[in-house]
Amino acid sequence: MAVKFTVLRTDGSARAGVMETARGIIHTPQFMPVGTQGTVKAMSSEELLSIGAEIILGNTYHLYLRPGTDVIDALGGLHRFISWPGPILTDSGGFQVFSLARLRDITNEGVTFNSHIDGSSHFLSPEKAMEIQRALRSDIAMCFDECPPYPSSYDYIARSLRLTTEWAKRCREAIPPGSKTAVFGIFQGGVFRELRRESLEEIVEIGFEGYAAGGLSVGEPKDLMHEIITYTAPMMPPERPRYLMGIGDLRDVLLAVESGYDIFDCVMPTRNARNGTLFTSRGRLSIKRAEFKRDDSPIDPDCACPTCLKYSRAYLRHLFLAREILSMRLNTIHNLSFYMRFFREMREAIMKGRFKEFKSRWLPVLEENFR
Amino acid sequence: MAVKFTVLRTDGSARAGVMETARGIIHTPQFMPVGTQGTVKAMSSEELLSIGAEIILGNTYHLYLRPGTDVIDALGGLHRFISWPGPILTDSGGFQVFSLARLRDITNEGVTFNSHIDGSSHFLSPEKAMEIQRALRSDIAMCFDECPPYPSSYDYIARSLRLTTEWAKRCREAIPPGSKTAVFGIFQGGVFRELRRESLEEIVEIGFEGYAAGGLSVGEPKDLMHEIITYTAPMMPPERPRYLMGIGDLRDVLLAVESGYDIFDCVMPTRNARNGTLFTSRGRLSIKRAEFKRDDSPIDPDCACPTCLKYSRAYLRHLFLAREILSMRLNTIHNLSFYMRFFREMREAIMKGRFKEFKSRWLPVLEENFR
Repeated sequence: MAVKFTVLRTDGSARAGVMETARGIIHTPQFMPVGTQGTVKAMSSEELLSIGAEIILGNTYHLYLRPGTDVIDALGGLHRFISWPGPILTDSGGFQVFSLARLRDITNEGVTFNSHIDGSSHFLSPEKAMEIQRALRSDIAMCFDECPPYPSSYDYIARSLRLTTEWAKRCREAIPPGSKTAVFGIFQGGVFRELRRESLEEIVEIGFEGYAAGGLSVGEPKDLMHEIITYTAPMMPPERPRYLMGIGDLRDVLLAVESGYDIFDCVMPTRNARNGTLFTSRGRLSIKRAEFKRDDSPIDPDCACPTCLKYSRAYLRHLFLAREILSMRLNTIHNLSFYMRFFREMREAIMKGRFKEFKSRWLPVLEENFR
Repeated sequence: MAVKFTVLRTDGSARAGVMETARGIIHTPQFMPVGTQGTVKAMSSEELLSIGAEIILGNTYHLYLRPGTDVIDALGGLHRFISWPGPILTDSGGFQVFSLARLRDITNEGVTFNSHIDGSSHFLSPEKAMEIQRALRSDIAMCFDECPPYPSSYDYIARSLRLTTEWAKRCREAIPPGSKTAVFGIFQGGVFRELRRESLEEIVEIGFEGYAAGGLSVGEPKDLMHEIITYTAPMMPPERPRYLMGIGDLRDVLLAVESGYDIFDCVMPTRNARNGTLFTSRGRLSIKRAEFKRDDSPIDPDCACPTCLKYSRAYLRHLFLAREILSMRLNTIHNLSFYMRFFREMREAIMKGRFKEFKSRWLPVLEENFR
C-alpha cells in the first residue's frame, strides 16, 4: 500500500499516528501547507523543511492549466519539478472547477468548464483527474467529486451524492489498490447528517487508503460545520487517515482533532501572512499598525521561528509598508511556523495523554487569533 | 581610519585590493548589491552571504523617507535593523533627490523637494545628509552632491561644481577624518574632461577615505562615458578606493577595472531578475520564452548557484508566468551570483597577472548578455 497508517496513541477520540509513504513519514495530526501553483507562496523547499513541514498540497486544477500536466510529467513529476523531496497530496481539481472556474456543464461523464486564466475550455472527469494526479507522481491523490455550494437543498445534495459515489468508483478503478499512488475517498452531504452518513458509507464501501470530508467551510454557519465534524469523525474507519479538507481556523482544527480527524490543509496562514496578519501566542497582530513603528521586539516573544529570532516588528512593518518581497517571505515563515508548532505540540500532548490540557491552554490563544 | 585600503596587486592599471572596515573585509574589485529600502529586493541576508556578497548599498533618500532615520536610529542602526552583519555603504540621497523626487529649490544651503511617496516636503543639505548616514551607522557615507541631468551645458556643470565642492567641504566637516564612518568624496563634471579634472582635484584637495565618480550612466552616449572612465581613473589617488557609481553593464565595469576603478553598484542584476531577464555564460536569456516550456536544464549549465543547482528552466518559466514570489527570489539569486562570479574571477585574474586573458575570455560573453 502506498500509504501505511498506524495509530500510535489515542487520547479520548484524538489520535496521534504516522502515515508512511515512499517519500517520507508524516506524523499526524499534521498540517499541509498549500502549494497551489507548484510553490508554497513565497517559500523555498529548504525553508519549508526547516520549519518542520512534512507534506505539502498541490492543486491539480492549477497545475493542469499551468504549466500543464504534460510539462510536469515530462520533467519527471511534481516533486522533481518543484524540488520538494517529501510527500505531496494533490486535490482532484473538483473543488476549484466548482468554485474558481466558470462551470459550463456537469454530466455523469464529467465537467466542462472555462479556465480562470484565459477562458479556454476544458473537460475534467474522474478518469482524467486520476490520470493527471498520477502524471504528477502524487503520493496521495484525491477522488474527483461534485462540490455543491452552500446553501444547497437536501434534494440537490442527495442527487449530487449519486454522482460523487459513481465518480469515486471510477477513480478507484483508475488507480486501483496497490498502485504507487494512494487514493483518498471524499464524502459529501452538506450540512445534513443523514446524507453525510449515507455518503461516507458508500465511499467506505468502495475502499480507499484514506477518507476525507469535503464540502465544509464553504460558507455554512460554524455550529453546523462543528456538528458535521463531530458527527462524522467517529463513523470513519479508525484504521485509515481522516482528512478534513480546507479547514484552517485552528479552533475548528482543535475540535476536529478532538473528534478524531488527522490531517488538514488551508491557505489561511500563508495568505494572512502576505496581508500582514500574523498569528502569535498573544493573539493576532496586524504588522502595519503605527504602534510597531519603533517596536524592537519580535512578532511573538514566545516564538523561535527564523523570523522571530532575527527581525523586529519595526523592520517587518517597514518591509510591509514598502511592499517588499522579503515582507511576504518573513511573514509566511512566521505564520507557517505558528501552525507547525501548534500541530507539533498537539501531537505531543496526545502522545502523553494530555490533549485536554493542551486544549485548555491553547483555546484562549486561538480565540485571540481567530475571532 | 574607518576604511583601510590596500592594493595587493596591479595588472596594468587594474588593481586587486582589500578594504578593511570594522564590519569586515571587502575584496576589490567588488560589486555592491543595492538594498534600496533596507533589503536587497527578494533576498535574505543569509542568501546574500551565501553567494559571496561582502558589502551592500543602502539608499539614504528612501530610508530617510521610510521608515525614517529616527526609526532606524532608535532600532540601533541599519545593520541591526535589517540584520545584515557586513559593511554597508550609503549614498547621500543626492542622486534620488535630483532624479526621483520632485525638486523644488536648490540653494547653497541645500535642496528642497517633495517625497515621491506622499508628496510631503523635505529639505536635504550636506549636514543633514551626513547626519542621516551617521544615524544609519553607515560604514561608508557618500558626500551630498549636485547631480546635473544629461545633457547639461558646460556652463551649467561648471557652476554646479562650485556647489558640489562647497558641499563636499561641509560633508567633511560634518564627519571629520578619524570618525567611525568613512566618507567618500564624489566628483562630477559631466562628459567634460576639463571639468572632471577640476572637480576631482577640488575633491581630493579636501581629502576623503575614498573617491567616487558620480553623474555617469545618466543617459550620455557610451563612448563619452568610456572616455570619462578611462580619463579619470589614472588621476584618482592610487592609495584610495575608486568607486564608479551606478554602473552595472559589465562591459563598462571591465573597462573601468582595466582603468583602475575598484568598486561598483547597480540595480541591473536584481531588477532584470525580477523581469525574468537572466545573465548566463552563453548570453542573456528571457525565462518566459516558449522554448523553455519543457527545458529540464538549468538557467546556465556553467553556473553553480543555488538556483542552477536545483531548478530547471521549465520550472522557472512556470513560476515567472504564474507571477510567483519564488520566481523573483530564484532569478535574483542567479543574477547576483553571475555578478559575484564575474567579480571574483576578475579579482583572481588580476592577482595572477592575467587580467588580459580574463578580459578576452569574458568580453564575448558580456557582449551576448548586455547587447
